[in-house]
Amino acid sequence: MDCEIMKNKVFKEFREKLLELWHLNSALAVLSWDQEVNMPENGADLRAKTIASLAGLLHGKFVSKEFSTVINKVKKFSDNGELNKKETAIFREVWREFSREEKLSSEFVEELAELCSKSQSVWSEARKKSNFKIFQPYLEKIVELKRKEAKFVGYEKSPYDALIDTYEPGMTSEELSVIFYELKIFLVDILQKIKKSKKKIDARKLKGNFPIEKQEKLNKFIAEKMGFNFESGRMDISTHPFTTNFHPDDVRITTRYDEKNLFYSVLSTIHETGHALYEQGIEMKNFGTPLGESISLGIHESQSRIWEKNIGQSQEFWKCFYPDLKKNFPDVFRKLKLVELYEVINEVKPSSIRTEADELTYNLHIILRFEIEKELIEGSIEVADLPKIWNSKMKEYLGIKILKDSQGILQDVHWSGGSIGYFPTYTLGNLYAAQLYAKIKKDIPDLKKEIENGNFENILAWLRKNIHTHGKLYTADELIRKITGETLSSKYFMDYINNKYGKIYEL
Amino acid sequence: MDCEIMKNKVFKEFREKLLELWHLNSALAVLSWDQEVNMPENGADLRAKTIASLAGLLHGKFVSKEFSTVINKVKKFSDNGELNKKETAIFREVWREFSREEKLSSEFVEELAELCSKSQSVWSEARKKSNFKIFQPYLEKIVELKRKEAKFVGYEKSPYDALIDTYEPGMTSEELSVIFYELKIFLVDILQKIKKSKKKIDARKLKGNFPIEKQEKLNKFIAEKMGFNFESGRMDISTHPFTTNFHPDDVRITTRYDEKNLFYSVLSTIHETGHALYEQGIEMKNFGTPLGESISLGIHESQSRIWEKNIGQSQEFWKCFYPDLKKNFPDVFRKLKLVELYEVINEVKPSSIRTEADELTYNLHIILRFEIEKELIEGSIEVADLPKIWNSKMKEYLGIKILKDSQGILQDVHWSGGSIGYFPTYTLGNLYAAQLYAKIKKDIPDLKKEIENGNFENILAWLRKNIHTHGKLYTADELIRKITGETLSSKYFMDYINNKYGKIYEL
Repeated sequence: MDCEIMKNKVFKEFREKLLELWHLNSALAVLSWDQEVNMPENGADLRAKTIASLAGLLHGKFVSKEFSTVINKVKKFSDNGELNKKETAIFREVWREFSREEKLSSEFVEELAELCSKSQSVWSEARKKSNFKIFQPYLEKIVELKRKEAKFVGYEKSPYDALIDTYEPGMTSEELSVIFYELKIFLVDILQKIKKSKKKIDARKLKGNFPIEKQEKLNKFIAEKMGFNFESGRMDISTHPFTTNFHPDDVRITTRYDEKNLFYSVLSTIHETGHALYEQGIEMKNFGTPLGESISLGIHESQSRIWEKNIGQSQEFWKCFYPDLKKNFPDVFRKLKLVELYEVINEVKPSSIRTEADELTYNLHIILRFEIEKELIEGSIEVADLPKIWNSKMKEYLGIKILKDSQGILQDVHWSGGSIGYFPTYTLGNLYAAQLYAKIKKDIPDLKKEIENGNFENILAWLRKNIHTHGKLYTADELIRKITGETLSSKYFMDYINNKYGKIYEL
Repeated sequence: MDCEIMKNKVFKEFREKLLELWHLNSALAVLSWDQEVNMPENGADLRAKTIASLAGLLHGKFVSKEFSTVINKVKKFSDNGELNKKETAIFREVWREFSREEKLSSEFVEELAELCSKSQSVWSEARKKSNFKIFQPYLEKIVELKRKEAKFVGYEKSPYDALIDTYEPGMTSEELSVIFYELKIFLVDILQKIKKSKKKIDARKLKGNFPIEKQEKLNKFIAEKMGFNFESGRMDISTHPFTTNFHPDDVRITTRYDEKNLFYSVLSTIHETGHALYEQGIEMKNFGTPLGESISLGIHESQSRIWEKNIGQSQEFWKCFYPDLKKNFPDVFRKLKLVELYEVINEVKPSSIRTEADELTYNLHIILRFEIEKELIEGSIEVADLPKIWNSKMKEYLGIKILKDSQGILQDVHWSGGSIGYFPTYTLGNLYAAQLYAKIKKDIPDLKKEIENGNFENILAWLRKNIHTHGKLYTADELIRKITGETLSSKYFMDYINNKYGKIYEL
């Protein structure tokens, strides 16, 4: 048989096997979405087991002899340089994950899954009681297993690299250390300046009563304006807002409401819509391959941040929607000037809680977590010392005194679920966003005007063309170079912060 | 090793394998529920493929060598009479399904699934255009494949038996013919008498405007009163009302609303709640075995019918809820007498559409379908002749002239989805319901009073104890004998109809 024909035959078989895995993944996503949005209280126990069972099935299929045989056939074509560009990307991504998963025994995967499932409820209890001691032995065990995982998977310099790789393929602990160190110095410095600024922002101006029904209508209106297609998606309510996709034609976002705080929900909806537009922009024909998937958590976060921060917290954006605000909530907005609104939603105010932080101090929360995670996994600090370390860093970076564990070390769910190496992707998202947005501004000269007019078509088209449609064709590093001509740099984010907050706080 | 220990070891392995299948089934149920209730328009195509993929996986696992090895080990213990009562029931039910599925090749299962998936959209189009000719070639192919299925599966007397067996295990075409023939004679006769009765019921008395929000509140109130546990279930909206269960702690019902017609939604909700109470009454500890599943579609339908017809369309039931009706919809109910309401919701009025039929003529719709299905599968009539046959039977049994295919042969989705042998379970449900309800009346002497007082605890406890908690421990026939002391008989239903409609129509 001719080599091309043989390759096509093997690749077809490969794609069919992948498709089965993707369908299982899609089903798991439906189960999880339903769990957060609809599931009645008593359904939890068995749902967790159904999810675990399907996840086990998926892992089993992935590392099965059958799948191994097919992917190793594809590998030969890859080794001989016989794959085209798209096939190369598909193979590269599946192989990366396959060789990672293959190194983990089913016993290990199950042990970790069970520990994490248990740890999450222990963490929840510990947080409620604000007592780290309750959670400590579990976190110790998690750190131990995550170190093991890193050892199984392998790494060049730091075991932490092996963990970051799950969320941000190709990124290393060393690279992050350099970027984050520079960023930390900058942020701590500008935060000092802002604290000393005479400019005071009065957040009470935005207080009021915002009926949830009206908030919901506004959210949907804005999401639709941004380009979210409700025929290929939904918007619902859940405790913690999130976006999920079963495939590009079924992408779902959630939000939550506070009657007293309009922007609590609106900004979170803009954020999630940013994620959702990425997912809706992926090409359906690539479903069942990595070309039908987002690149990394960092790039994903850049999409939500561009919409939420760069666009959604700009004056021009709210100039566009001001008539809607006035119409729906006249009591608050007929008295408020646009610039006052802009200042309140951009107020810099150090907080002990990451999820309540402004876009500037947010990154200090992340850098703190990065430093701790890295040292934990590298073994240079102990779990028992975490509250002390946490609290001292909070004082140093943000000037905040942590009074209880629930407001400090116990605030986030991530570690209890085994997600170590995840936090850095939040700040990476901000950096990617700033670097990409600088390029968007160059490419769309009338950008500000377009936003003022509620015309988001060019921005979305730009994101679609440059990012969404590619799926995982490029790595994150390849993509950012391809678009901006340089590798990831914190320079754009610092410029953006300097510029924006320099004006707001008259620095 | 001691035989008991060996048996327990084998049975444990068997239950673990079953559990994996049950989890997949549970996931499939979530996917289907979401499809009907939440899924955005464009999600349909890929959802169908995800469902097909998981269903294929499930079938593959069920008939795999691995599963076959285990179930055949259990079979040896069964053959030697070494299983206890519960183990025997578990094995009996799994073996029945396993030996059925094993006889069907994957190719056949896929061919049928693909045909049915396609046929459903063709049927939908044919119904829209009211043109049977469009659907005819597909139905011919379905009948051909269902005959093949019966041949593969095997049967003693009629190939139709092999199809009924999927929905109502143990029931035969012969037994149904006897019961349904007798019933038909009775129903046609009493219908003639009712038509001649001087008593006229004026349904316009129940017309009014019923805000959907209030209807929903009433539905939830009634469902809760009946015993539906909203912490282990939900109520939503879908085009066609249905009940689904992922397990006893997550049971979901749906309904639909018509602003002009209150009972359109309320009675359907009572019906679905009846189904749901069965599912919520199954014991959680049996999840993952047939003891954690309902017996048959006929028994399931009896549970919905007892609540909807025997209880929900009684005077005592609405006496209980009359204050709520008056409070919520004063315009209609302050003028209406309880007995008038009772008569309107029980009006006998032959209709061309099955789903709009009253509880008396409904069974003639089913018997007509049963007769046609049976002859189709046995090969004594041809698909091409169906509209003619249908229309002539409608004239004969119900005195109704069918003017177009959409109101006749094309009205139901069942056949297009490959469900042949399903229809009889609806009438079986009515017969089981009447026979069981006669026993309930004996066992709970104050039943009428309890219903008037909205006290449904004893009825529910009776159903739980006698039916729900057993799962598939007994076959349908064993159960009805155990409870009522005799095999299924249409006598109780005929008595019930005679008694109820004799009074209403003063026969």
